[in-house]
Formats: sequence, structure tokens, C-alpha cells
Amino acid sequence: LQSRLPAVGTTVFTLMSNLAAEHGAVNLGQGFPDFACDPRLPELVSEAMRAGLNQYPPMPGAAPLRAAIAAKIAALYGRAYDAATEITVTAGATQAIVTAILCAVHPGDEVIVIEPAYDSYLPAIRLAGAVPVTVPMRLDEAGYHVPWNDVAGAVTPRTRMVVINSPHNPTGSILRPCDLDALAAIVADTDILVLSDEVYEHMVYDGEQHASVSRHPVLAERAFVVSSFGKTYHVTGWKIGYVAAPAALTAEFRKVHQYDLFSVNTPMQHGLAAYMADPAPYLDLPAFYQRKRDLFRAGLAGTRFTLLPADGTYFQCVRYDGVSDLPEAEFAQWLTREIKVAAIPVSAFYRGGRESGIVRFCFAKQDETLRLALERLARV
Amino acid sequence: LQSRLPAVGTTVFTLMSNLAAEHGAVNLGQGFPDFACDPRLPELVSEAMRAGLNQYPPMPGAAPLRAAIAAKIAALYGRAYDAATEITVTAGATQAIVTAILCAVHPGDEVIVIEPAYDSYLPAIRLAGAVPVTVPMRLDEAGYHVPWNDVAGAVTPRTRMVVINSPHNPTGSILRPCDLDALAAIVADTDILVLSDEVYEHMVYDGEQHASVSRHPVLAERAFVVSSFGKTYHVTGWKIGYVAAPAALTAEFRKVHQYDLFSVNTPMQHGLAAYMADPAPYLDLPAFYQRKRDLFRAGLAGTRFTLLPADGTYFQCVRYDGVSDLPEAEFAQWLTREIKVAAIPVSAFYRGGRESGIVRFCFAKQDETLRLALERLARV
Ligand SMILES: CSCCC(=O)C(=O)O
Ligand SMILES: CSCCC(=O)C(=O)O
Repeated sequence: LQSRLPAVGTTVFTLMSNLAAEHGAVNLGQGFPDFACDPRLPELVSEAMRAGLNQYPPMPGAAPLRAAIAAKIAALYGRAYDAATEITVTAGATQAIVTAILCAVHPGDEVIVIEPAYDSYLPAIRLAGAVPVTVPMRLDEAGYHVPWNDVAGAVTPRTRMVVINSPHNPTGSILRPCDLDALAAIVADTDILVLSDEVYEHMVYDGEQHASVSRHPVLAERAFVVSSFGKTYHVTGWKIGYVAAPAALTAEFRKVHQYDLFSVNTPMQHGLAAYMADPAPYLDLPAFYQRKRDLFRAGLAGTRFTLLPADGTYFQCVRYDGVSDLPEAEFAQWLTREIKVAAIPVSAFYRGGRESGIVRFCFAKQDETLRLALERLARV
Repeated sequence: LQSRLPAVGTTVFTLMSNLAAEHGAVNLGQGFPDFACDPRLPELVSEAMRAGLNQYPPMPGAAPLRAAIAAKIAALYGRAYDAATEITVTAGATQAIVTAILCAVHPGDEVIVIEPAYDSYLPAIRLAGAVPVTVPMRLDEAGYHVPWNDVAGAVTPRTRMVVINSPHNPTGSILRPCDLDALAAIVADTDILVLSDEVYEHMVYDGEQHASVSRHPVLAERAFVVSSFGKTYHVTGWKIGYVAAPAALTAEFRKVHQYDLFSVNTPMQHGLAAYMADPAPYLDLPAFYQRKRDLFRAGLAGTRFTLLPADGTYFQCVRYDGVSDLPEAEFAQWLTREIKVAAIPVSAFYRGGRESGIVRFCFAKQDETLRLALERLARV
């Protein structure tokens, strides 16, 4: 059998989680919380199941959930997506991303991806028969940023889409309104679409606001905006997300969605819809995670790791040149085996495996988990 | 935006369910039960959620569910799939089907599909950049059957896969061991793969056994065998299925699955795994549905519809030439609007919309629902 994705191995997240389990390491690798979700949320799902909401939902999503998503986006970002024609519930953000790419990108088209990049973007582009064109972020004292001139330089007549991600996994950087304006200037007078991965939208710190593409009047007109409930509600295993896009894009999205999934778990959708009635859980999230970020950064400040800025997401990147000159993957494995703290090599987010001497920790953990990890990291 | 799936509209199932709701019709169109699932099943999911099983599961599926699936297949069909390397849990059968096609079929390859065919097969093949080659079933007094000589004649050097489906939606026909032998003879000495959609595996009547491809020693070696829990456990909205395939095929399947979905809802998987410990729910299913089939057929026998055989699935096809000479889609709409019983035109399962004067009813309904529908159908 000739492979459609010959370059693909097991994701680094699975590899590092397995290695962490094998060595009894504190797992700060794969991004997921080690604490429970609000017990009201599963209870609402149980109620939906008991109410008999167990058969096929509408293909684009349960109506109450689409309405709740549209209301949230309108309240937070000021754009009124029509729940009937512009919001589609997906089986997590990964399925939303591949579906957006498959519905909009034709074989031979080019898709610009900014690196480091979440590891599903490139395989999704390849499945569409398209060509990924990568543009590396720049790193200076202020942190990672997107060099928009380089993005502009990567545009060709075949460019069909630009994929952006903010808050950004793995770097923890965020795009600001001026970044979105720069992208808008690049795509003006082209038919280039934007795929905006915003699954960490509710994790932006230090009083900054998430610059959602749905708020940007020019970009929103040509964008698939993807988010998910897994990160926001501490249920990464529920695999429910959504895409908001103008009606013409949504129509194409749903043509593919209808046949690559059809629809999403019914009772989970109804439980989430009921839970969304209260905005407190996501409005309180920045303070909740900022405290953990600060606890973790304060601890790391006393170690031989060098902290990079962390403006958003639940990830903290560090340089380890004060500790080791191993390549990143080997360093992450050594750290897991010997120091018993698992991390993710940032090189795994670059197509060529580019080395920058940086690893990523996830701080979505109980304080005691973070303290245990910090104790160990202090010994390095 | 140039469409990737220009021919695709809204599925006939959604259209007919909407029309049924609009006209207060008894909905025997889209296939789903109108009765509740066993309350123990949602309770097991609730227990999993309360136990904190809400974070990412392993990419190929929760270990207890893969083990339960492998044990079931071994017990029923005698093939020992390795749960670690040969079973993958999917977000329903639709996602399993598109993933199997995307991982194994290359642009320009041909895929043979037997018509009438479930409506996701052809779009999935087109998304892979491949070419669907359709072979119509034959219909005689004994019912629908696959003309294997025609399948053999459709094979070319570009043929990469044959898609089969038994028990068959929409015709209710089943493949028997001699059918699988005929297919095995066709693919012998080729590298043609088989995709076997067996989501109605537990609905075979009159004492016959389901001829699973997983039981066939030759075909199983080159087959993706797809099934799902939605039909078996009366939870069509849960969207959890699986694929069983030899390790080499599963490895390719997972490369795509990892990036077109990543993984399936964690607590639902654990609830299903616990529920599978008792085989009674699926062992009792043939008797449960055969009684409904017989009730429905007995009622229809007194009408102007002509019954076709119904050996499996929860569908009953009928000729309506004693009632009307409208084309199928118009007849189904008329029946929904005027007689207040919704059905599915079988023409929707043919690429060219081939007309045969046949519609499909779903009998996965409470007896009183079936009786109400029969009263109305008797008036036609
Ligand atoms: C789908 S497993 C990866 C989880 C995640 O988003 C991350 O760790 O980056
Ligand atoms: C996914 S909606 C279609 C349900 C079904 O399998 C059918 O009615 O044939």
C-alpha cells in the first residue's frame, strides 16, 4: 500500500505522553489539564441523554448550540454570524481544520502556514492535494512574531489560503490588531482565504484582548474561524469544536462536513449549549490560567532555563542552552527520563525539524503538579 | 470560491426529515429509531464522566473499547484482530469510510461502488481525487443482488478499491458467503482493497448469519471493515464507530485519522466499552427488529404497495407502481405531504438518479408509529 502521507509518524504528543507514563514523569508535554472539569457540565450532558437526545442531530449542529456559539461571538467579538448559515459544529478543531482545507483548497493550490505550526495543518493540506508553503516566525527579545513581509513574499498566484493561529501553539504568542491589519493588506485584491485557529481564544493574559479574526471586518469576510470547547472547559477528550464563516464559505464547508463526518455527538452538544448560558466559565479563564502561568514562571525563574514571553495559551516555552546542547527531541526525552518532567520539542512544529534550543511546557496542571515539576526542573 | 464538491446538495435524509417535520408526517425516511436506548448505556457514560475520563483518549481509541471490539469480532466472526494495531475507533462510520478512502486511494485511482449506494461513498472518493466507477445491482423476484460479472468487468489497472455494504442500505439485501467468494476471486492477484460497510451487521433476519468480511480469510487480509454503535444500540446521534483492518492497512488509516480527527469522545468510548461486556443487546437485535419488520410487512401486504424482500437492515423497500407513476423524489414528497408518511426515494442512492419506482421505509420505530404509518399507507 503506497502511503498518502508517507512523512507521517505518530504525533509527538502521543510519543511524549507514552514516554512520560513509562518513566513516571510529570507530564507537561501534551496539552491537557490534569484537573476535573466543572461537574455541572457532565451533569448537563447526562440530562440530555436522559431526555432522550441520542439520535442524529442536524448535520450543521444542534440548533441551541449553534445559537449559543453565535451569541458568544457576537458578545465578545461584535460579529453577528447567522447560526443557521454561518456556524457549524465539528468533531473538535482538528476535524474543522481539515474540513475547511478540503472544502476550499484544490489540488496544486498553495497554502501558507506560519511555523512553528500545529502538526495537523501540513497533513491536512497534503490530503487536499495542495502544497504547503511555510514561513517561519521571528524570535527576538519581545518574543515570537510573524514577519508579515515574509508572508507577503510567499504569496504567489497559486496561493489559496493562509493559516494563522492565535493565541499560538506552541509559542504562546498572540496576534494583535496590527497583525491582522497586515494580513488584511496582503490578501486585499486577492481571493486568498484565511483559516484562523483560535482554540486558545480564552487564554490571553495581562489584560490584553483576544484579537479574533471574527472581529476584523475585512478578514472575517474571507475567513474560517475555528474554535473548540476542549481547552476552554477542561474537556480535551470531548472533541467538540466549531467553525464560524460567512454563508458562502459555510456552504462549501458543510458540503464536505456532511460526508467526512455528517454530524457531532448529540447529547454532548446539548449539554454544552446549556452550559454556555453562563459566560462566567470562559470569562474567568484568563485569571485562572494567568495565576498558573505566573506560578510556573516564578518557579522557572530560579532555574537554568530561560523564559520566553507567554502572552496566551496554556504553554510556556523555554530556552535550555544553559542546561544542555542536545537537539530538542533528545533533550525532551532526556528531561522526561532523567528529570521526570515531560516537555515537547518545538522542533516538532517545524517541517524540517528546525532546531532552536527551545521546549514547550504545558501549565494546565494542578498547582501541586506544577510545584513538583518545578522542584525537579530546579535540580537540572 | 470554486467548489470541491460541486454536485453536492443537502442529503436526502435531511431534506425528507425537514419535510416530514413541516407536514407533521410520520417520519419513516431518515434511518433512526423513535424509541429510547437502554438507560444503562447513558448511565455508563455518565459514570465515565464523573470518574474524570474527560481528557484526550489515545488517538486510535480508548484501550477498553478497542479490546471489547476485538473480542466481539473474534467471538462472532472468528477473526482475532489485534486491538493494539488493527482496531481504530472513529467518529461514526462516515468518518471511518472517508478516512479509509483518503488513506488508501490516490488521485486518479478508480474505486468501484455498487449502486444503490449510501450517499457518502461518492463524495469521499471525489475528495481523495479518485474516480468512482459504479456498478448497479440487479433486481429480480429474489430481490437485489450484486452482479459479480459486472463488477469483474469494471476492474481496470487503475482500480484501487471496491466498496461493499452488507446488510445493504437502502435495499435490505445481504451478501452471502458465495458473494464474498465471488469478490475474492475478482481481487485475487490484484492489489485491490475492500472497504466493507457493515453498520447493520446485527440486523440479519430469518435465522441467517451476517457474512462479515472479517470472517472471510482472503478478503479480510485486504479489507477495512467498518461498523458503528449508533444503529446497534439505538443511539444514532452518538457518532461512534470503528474500523478493523490488518496492521499494515490500519497503520495507513491512523496516519490520516490522526490528522482528520485525532480521536473520539473519551467518556462515550468508556461507556460503550462497559456496555459491550454484555453481548445480549446485539445478540437480541435480530429478533427485536425481525418482529418489527414482520409487523410492518404484514401491514403493507394489505396495501397497493408491492413489498420487496427485506433480509437485513431496518429498511423496507416497496414498489409503488400500483399507486402512482410519479418519479421517486416527487412520489416521496407527495407521500410526505399528502399521506403524511415520509419515505426515501431509492433514486437518491444512484449517481444518475436512476428511477426504479421504489421507495424505502425505515421500520426502526415504535409499534404504534408503524401502525399509524400503516393506517395512512392503507388509504393510498
Ligand atoms: C491532540 S493532542 C495535542 C494536544 C495539543 O493541542 C498540544 O499539546 O499541542
Ligand atoms: C446520516 S443520516 C442518514 C441515516 C441513514 O443511514 C439512512 O437513513 O440511510
